[in-house]
Amino acid sequence: MTRTPVPAPSVDALRHVVDGRWANVRDETREEMGRHGLSADPDFTSEQYRAWVLEALKVLVASGRPHTGFDPSVGGKGDVGGVVTSFAMLAYGDLSLLVKAGVQWGLFGGAVQVLGTARHHDRYLRSIIDGELLGCFAMTETGHGSDVQHLHTTATYDRATEEFVIDTPHPGARKDYIGNAARDGRMAVVFAQLVIGDQKPGVHAFLVPLRDENGTVLPGVEVTDDGRKAGLNGVDNGRLAFSGVRIPRENLLNHFADVAADGTYSSSIENETARFFTMLGTLVRGRISVAGGAGAAAQKALTLAIRYGEQRRQFTNPSTGEETAVLDYLVHQRKLLPALATSYALQFTQDDLVARMHEIQAPGKPKAGAREQRQLEQSAAGIKAIATWHATATIQTCREACGGAGYLEENLLPALKADTDVFTTFEGDNTVLLQLLAKELLSDYGRTIKKGNPLGIAPLLGRQLASVGAERTGLASLLRRIPGVALDLGDRKRRTALLRTRREDTLATAIRHLAPAMRKGNDEFAVFNASQDLLLTAARAHVDALVEESFRNAIVRTTESSERGTSMGTDASVKGLLERVYDLHVLSVIDRERAWYLETGRLTAAESQTIRPLVNELCVELRPHARLLTDAFGIPEGWLSAPMLDGPAPLPVEAGVADVVAAG
Amino acid sequence: MTRTPVPAPSVDALRHVVDGRWANVRDETREEMGRHGLSADPDFTSEQYRAWVLEALKVLVASGRPHTGFDPSVGGKGDVGGVVTSFAMLAYGDLSLLVKAGVQWGLFGGAVQVLGTARHHDRYLRSIIDGELLGCFAMTETGHGSDVQHLHTTATYDRATEEFVIDTPHPGARKDYIGNAARDGRMAVVFAQLVIGDQKPGVHAFLVPLRDENGTVLPGVEVTDDGRKAGLNGVDNGRLAFSGVRIPRENLLNHFADVAADGTYSSSIENETARFFTMLGTLVRGRISVAGGAGAAAQKALTLAIRYGEQRRQFTNPSTGEETAVLDYLVHQRKLLPALATSYALQFTQDDLVARMHEIQAPGKPKAGAREQRQLEQSAAGIKAIATWHATATIQTCREACGGAGYLEENLLPALKADTDVFTTFEGDNTVLLQLLAKELLSDYGRTIKKGNPLGIAPLLGRQLASVGAERTGLASLLRRIPGVALDLGDRKRRTALLRTRREDTLATAIRHLAPAMRKGNDEFAVFNASQDLLLTAARAHVDALVEESFRNAIVRTTESSERGTSMGTDASVKGLLERVYDLHVLSVIDRERAWYLETGRLTAAESQTIRPLVNELCVELRPHARLLTDAFGIPEGWLSAPMLDGPAPLPVEAGVADVVAAG
Repeated sequence: MTRTPVPAPSVDALRHVVDGRWANVRDETREEMGRHGLSADPDFTSEQYRAWVLEALKVLVASGRPHTGFDPSVGGKGDVGGVVTSFAMLAYGDLSLLVKAGVQWGLFGGAVQVLGTARHHDRYLRSIIDGELLGCFAMTETGHGSDVQHLHTTATYDRATEEFVIDTPHPGARKDYIGNAARDGRMAVVFAQLVIGDQKPGVHAFLVPLRDENGTVLPGVEVTDDGRKAGLNGVDNGRLAFSGVRIPRENLLNHFADVAADGTYSSSIENETARFFTMLGTLVRGRISVAGGAGAAAQKALTLAIRYGEQRRQFTNPSTGEETAVLDYLVHQRKLLPALATSYALQFTQDDLVARMHEIQAPGKPKAGAREQRQLEQSAAGIKAIATWHATATIQTCREACGGAGYLEENLLPALKADTDVFTTFEGDNTVLLQLLAKELLSDYGRTIKKGNPLGIAPLLGRQLASVGAERTGLASLLRRIPGVALDLGDRKRRTALLRTRREDTLATAIRHLAPAMRKGNDEFAVFNASQDLLLTAARAHVDALVEESFRNAIVRTTESSERGTSMGTDASVKGLLERVYDLHVLSVIDRERAWYLETGRLTAAESQTIRPLVNELCVELRPHARLLTDAFGIPEGWLSAPMLDGPAPLPVEAGVADVVAAG
Repeated sequence: MTRTPVPAPSVDALRHVVDGRWANVRDETREEMGRHGLSADPDFTSEQYRAWVLEALKVLVASGRPHTGFDPSVGGKGDVGGVVTSFAMLAYGDLSLLVKAGVQWGLFGGAVQVLGTARHHDRYLRSIIDGELLGCFAMTETGHGSDVQHLHTTATYDRATEEFVIDTPHPGARKDYIGNAARDGRMAVVFAQLVIGDQKPGVHAFLVPLRDENGTVLPGVEVTDDGRKAGLNGVDNGRLAFSGVRIPRENLLNHFADVAADGTYSSSIENETARFFTMLGTLVRGRISVAGGAGAAAQKALTLAIRYGEQRRQFTNPSTGEETAVLDYLVHQRKLLPALATSYALQFTQDDLVARMHEIQAPGKPKAGAREQRQLEQSAAGIKAIATWHATATIQTCREACGGAGYLEENLLPALKADTDVFTTFEGDNTVLLQLLAKELLSDYGRTIKKGNPLGIAPLLGRQLASVGAERTGLASLLRRIPGVALDLGDRKRRTALLRTRREDTLATAIRHLAPAMRKGNDEFAVFNASQDLLLTAARAHVDALVEESFRNAIVRTTESSERGTSMGTDASVKGLLERVYDLHVLSVIDRERAWYLETGRLTAAESQTIRPLVNELCVELRPHARLLTDAFGIPEGWLSAPMLDGPAPLPVEAGVADVVAAG
């Protein structure tokens, strides 16, 4: 089968669509970044690198960008979505700088803003925004990373002096991996178990000074350096231990709960666990920012590897007598192009996620309902996990696709790999996040049942019964009679249906396996534990469907703006190209999961075997557009300067190769 | 289903089996290493690290170990297998030291030994062995990495002076990524196109001096530093360019070909390509050593992650009220234990591979036939690819399984990751190696056809026809009637048959897709290119079957030595445990490839769905033995010293959990 070749849109038209809602912020950020071209020396010692990052932070302050995310009351613009978008673009440059900025303004500044009240905002936010007061976000402890509700640091109220006393009861309770702690931080938002006499109302956040204006560590505070890390060595991560450190009562960040002078505790949220998760929920911005940074890093790696793949030639084609560009090899295309398609999908997903956050968190917006907030947190958890794993795998692949050149720091891939590696386990370990998401999905399911909503459940249960039958009898073909699924695999609607079906069925399977946990006498933990892999599968399938939906909607928006004839700079060829990219992304997902589709009878063996040639065909079709697709990310050229790309100009892409492969 | 718990053997008995043929060398190496405990500072600049490695190299010289691999004629022991085994164990310690040693004695010294003759051996080998003459192996060029037959450096014979003139015609022909080049190397084995007047008999190897005794670079030689790399920064990689560098005629390494004083060229191998690949083939030791180093690195990562997983507790089990060790979570087990099982499989595979090399290369052995040599090269290529990808993926998983702690250099995982990352693309890019293997398998198939050997082909073609039919009609269940396949999946024989079937069928599928290339008028390159993914699949399936065979044979040997009542220190519980590890490895492979088994009708949907619970069950069964299984690698404790392991003692493993999961 030979399809009509896809015409190439202009890079500007494509970039406009890729840039999405915060296109203006992206352009401004590109311009700001292009002007400074901040690049660190890869042979820096940790100390040299930290000093460099601290200087670079001042450049960011001067740009005025960090202000824009804060409330207008403290001189900001309240552009929550814009600042997260701009922040993620720092991943095109130096990732230590990104993380240092994230710690300072996102985590530390963000916690003061959302967990604190006017007394904290007035006193600290301006100097935080201006980078005069550098601070830490001290939540994780050596012994408690994922399970932060049970951390061990204590804040004991002393009514006599109206102070809290902060203590680290044992070495496992040291705050660990804390950015800004080892060298620069003068204050920390410390999460600790609040103790008021016999009352222990759970984890709260406190402002604790760490160093004086000269940088000398204050009495009772013990700082140790986490030392050299796999990457991000421009960030001064360290451990903090407290011994009888006294802070005024006013240093409790009291947006959700307060302690009166006499020790009376009050909170707008009665349940301790609910309160804790509400506090955590307001910090969702960090997780979303990490997903964005991971996305940008993967885009940069793909841009480098695709440029190299167009230029690098290896082995002579006996038909032409010329050496072949490595990106003309099918296996090379299969390494890079499906990953590129998924990067597109995640770009649109991230834009949607940021927009949802903006609608909830930006000042002046109506207060979000618990449901919207919860769904935002769920999506953020799932997308963070999938986006960071995508980055880790993609950057690894790009490194390998550039061979020895990809191993040299001068060619930028090593730092991308090393610096982003921790993204999969910080701001929530990915595996834990997906489990949280799965449990939330189970709860939502439970709530739907309670409401007796037949619309929400009937299809799920119906398919579930069919699926159980298929599992038992192997009569898989029966299932294909389900309406909306029994179409040709080349059909976009069928593929969308396949992703949706998987989301529903994997959840149903997890529910069925968990059912025994509800029965008396069964060990609930053991049943949950034995079903953990099914929970992860359900969560993954849920995110896959979310991502597909964002990509699909982005294409619909493109069509609409084309049809309206608006001046958004889009055109039909943008849509045509994006549709092929969308196809490749969705088929890659189905390809990855095709064992599941076969096992559950959603695909026949014959259908499954058509996936490989379809993916190959799409790779060949998109090969001529690979460079354009990466150019549309709009990464400043100064941050793509790699000696491995200083070779001869790329060969012109030959027509004809596509036809041969498509015919095979 | 609840199976009898597996009894634990002693660590010594298990280690004896794991140590294999060169157990004595392993013990000696452990003792040598334990004495020195060489560990670099992770915050070294490249220059500091290089100086440290150079000093550490002297410790290796003093140990006498490098001597043992060379011929007795130059003071060695000819223990080719032993030295490769010992060398790979350096990966337990510092990988820069491993690579520096590999460059000096394996690549540089090895090339002088196997490509040179007495005049080179007598003059250079002793000082190479003693580390007095440090050297390079200068094959790869900036423009030619994988396709080294077409590199561009020239060695032009000047009859007047009886010299070769070495030249780098353009920047793309610079030797690149060359270890020992940037700082320490005084001589290089340079691969160059030989030119004698109009005659160009292909690539040959020449000894070219680079620096004088004071380390000053010689005239005509240009050295540039490759700079900081992702890892291995203790190795001084660099680029070499030559401009009219004259070397005496005797510096041609003339084992396979020579140039007489009058310029007459002679060689024992007439065909140029055959000669080049024969020369390359003698260097197979490097590839085998990389596979061994990768295996050891993965073992170390697993040892660290499993110790941490036993000790690290997170989240409270509501049934017990205690926090759960993370290795008691099923998802954590599924991350680490199948990888551990595969590490066992690869350990036995590597031991077999080294033994085969030893039988061919060690002095005093009968000269190997072309077939044995070719098969050794095939296996080495395939196993190198699979072992290094396993290491990359496993170390990544182990890093993530240790969370933030795994990101700190002090906990050793970051260096393991960064240093071994290049293993997948050096000593042959993995993707290229698997393609070479696949093409060799196709050639072998062609040779079998030519010989008219019905035994070799009939089964393959028979299954092939059946398979084609299944692909076309979807009547997959027919296939299960093939003898030896239609057994219960829990049956070991069935599983072995599944791996073997896949090896044969994937090759047959590749052959069928390549057939059009033989027809006139078709573009051979395009057809091959469009089938590249099928070739990779066939190569991968071939290696999977090789690995399974090595593991199975190792268990058989264990049984035999038990039955003979020899004093090999084995016992029945070793065998019992290894069988479960074998089961987990083989099931993991089938699990990974189950889409293929479903598509080709080798597994029904119902059968495929039993894989997940089987893998889960084996994980739970092996969980109590995880620590023992890693202890049996015998990694010197000094090289496992990580602060993250200085926590509380691990919880005792509870019986009972296994039963619950097995019952689910």
